[in-house]
Amino acid sequence: MKLTFLGTGDARQVPLYGCQCCACERALQQPEYRRTACSISLEHNSARILIDAGQHDLRERFPPGTVDAILLTHYHMDHVAGLFPLRWGVNCEVPVFGPDDPDGCDDLFKHPGILQFQTPQPLFRRFDVEGLGFYPVPLNHSKLCQGYGIDAAGVHIAYLTDTVGLPDETVAFLQAWQVELLIIDCTHAPEQSLPRNHNDWNEVKRLIDILKPKKTLLTHIGHEMDCWLMNNPLPASVSVARDNMQLSL
Amino acid sequence: MKLTFLGTGDARQVPLYGCQCCACERALQQPEYRRTACSISLEHNSARILIDAGQHDLRERFPPGTVDAILLTHYHMDHVAGLFPLRWGVNCEVPVFGPDDPDGCDDLFKHPGILQFQTPQPLFRRFDVEGLGFYPVPLNHSKLCQGYGIDAAGVHIAYLTDTVGLPDETVAFLQAWQVELLIIDCTHAPEQSLPRNHNDWNEVKRLIDILKPKKTLLTHIGHEMDCWLMNNPLPASVSVARDNMQLSL
Repeated sequence: MKLTFLGTGDARQVPLYGCQCCACERALQQPEYRRTACSISLEHNSARILIDAGQHDLRERFPPGTVDAILLTHYHMDHVAGLFPLRWGVNCEVPVFGPDDPDGCDDLFKHPGILQFQTPQPLFRRFDVEGLGFYPVPLNHSKLCQGYGIDAAGVHIAYLTDTVGLPDETVAFLQAWQVELLIIDCTHAPEQSLPRNHNDWNEVKRLIDILKPKKTLLTHIGHEMDCWLMNNPLPASVSVARDNMQLSL
Repeated sequence: MKLTFLGTGDARQVPLYGCQCCACERALQQPEYRRTACSISLEHNSARILIDAGQHDLRERFPPGTVDAILLTHYHMDHVAGLFPLRWGVNCEVPVFGPDDPDGCDDLFKHPGILQFQTPQPLFRRFDVEGLGFYPVPLNHSKLCQGYGIDAAGVHIAYLTDTVGLPDETVAFLQAWQVELLIIDCTHAPEQSLPRNHNDWNEVKRLIDILKPKKTLLTHIGHEMDCWLMNNPLPASVSVARDNMQLSL
């Protein structure tokens, strides 16, 4: 399986519009440091599955017929914006899985077009899409949100955005399931107290101690965190995801 | 004043995702025929005003501090999508004028960021922004929607999207005001009966007969209309807008 980070930024993106901090200036000068809407692509057995769809250019990036399913974490705009121009397509229906949020975003449910919204899957129960196993797990966020345990031919990956900390039942599930690769929201640099809707590095460190993954990748990164990373090394088992980074698993 | 068509398509855009009609195939091969979200930019006395903000890449297209005001016709996603990534900027507040729609779109009003939403202006009454005069006029659409009469140093321009026909009071106002350049929604090729939310060419012809502009530019064009245009000439006073077309007025 090939995993591609389509975007690794928070809703503000990097560079933040109008910001002149060290991370935003670097991203303006060197496009490889830009961070767009947080989402990944999974390619497996010639199928492509997206987790989240905040990238505005999905229709340009993926020709008709090359997206086999979309899994959503939640219905905030930076995770679903790309669905709006995509939905009016023809002859290329796409099943969309997501949390049990009756509101969705704007008029997506009213006018779904080619988006085939599926009945929400039960939490913690495996469902299969194109040969990959997915376990929806609840997260802590300002909108109903779920991450996914991904079983890629026996490799256990947890993709956990957007969240601050984790609900107890999600911790218990992931401990038993044994996460090998943890991909987790680390929007904020270390803060004095726990942020409201997204992890800071202190909280991610605490979750790594509990879940004990072999490897951790930080994503959903805000510009202050990028600044902090320029002067603070991470433990050997932790890396920072970047837009367009690819992993073969 | 310089007027630039940032986008001239309907919500589906051209090429429509997955469509193989003559207009969509042409737009795939020749990017100059693509149509993105309908909106214009007005540059006047070194200020820039946007009418509508559906272009997703506003933050890349216009560096911080180079958009002085945004006027919205309505809060459908293809007219406001670009506001979502823009709003989290810093040090570059932008006043936003629009119709008196308390719902807005998604959480734009709840989290406006740098977007300074202004009290809606009275209909048919002039208000001035950066040296240009604007008259909001009500339109007929599935969501509360207004066009703008634009007084550019005495040149009268009417920008009328999205609409099917025009309310009687808008017709009366524009007849008295004397439109010189009419820029109007012509989403559809001629149809048997009046479409629901957007003009077809038959309705635009009728409105031209009533408003008697010197020149008309068609915009908000759907792919079927583009196909129809490939085989049907327009009257001499009517032209078709294209993305990135510029007018000096």
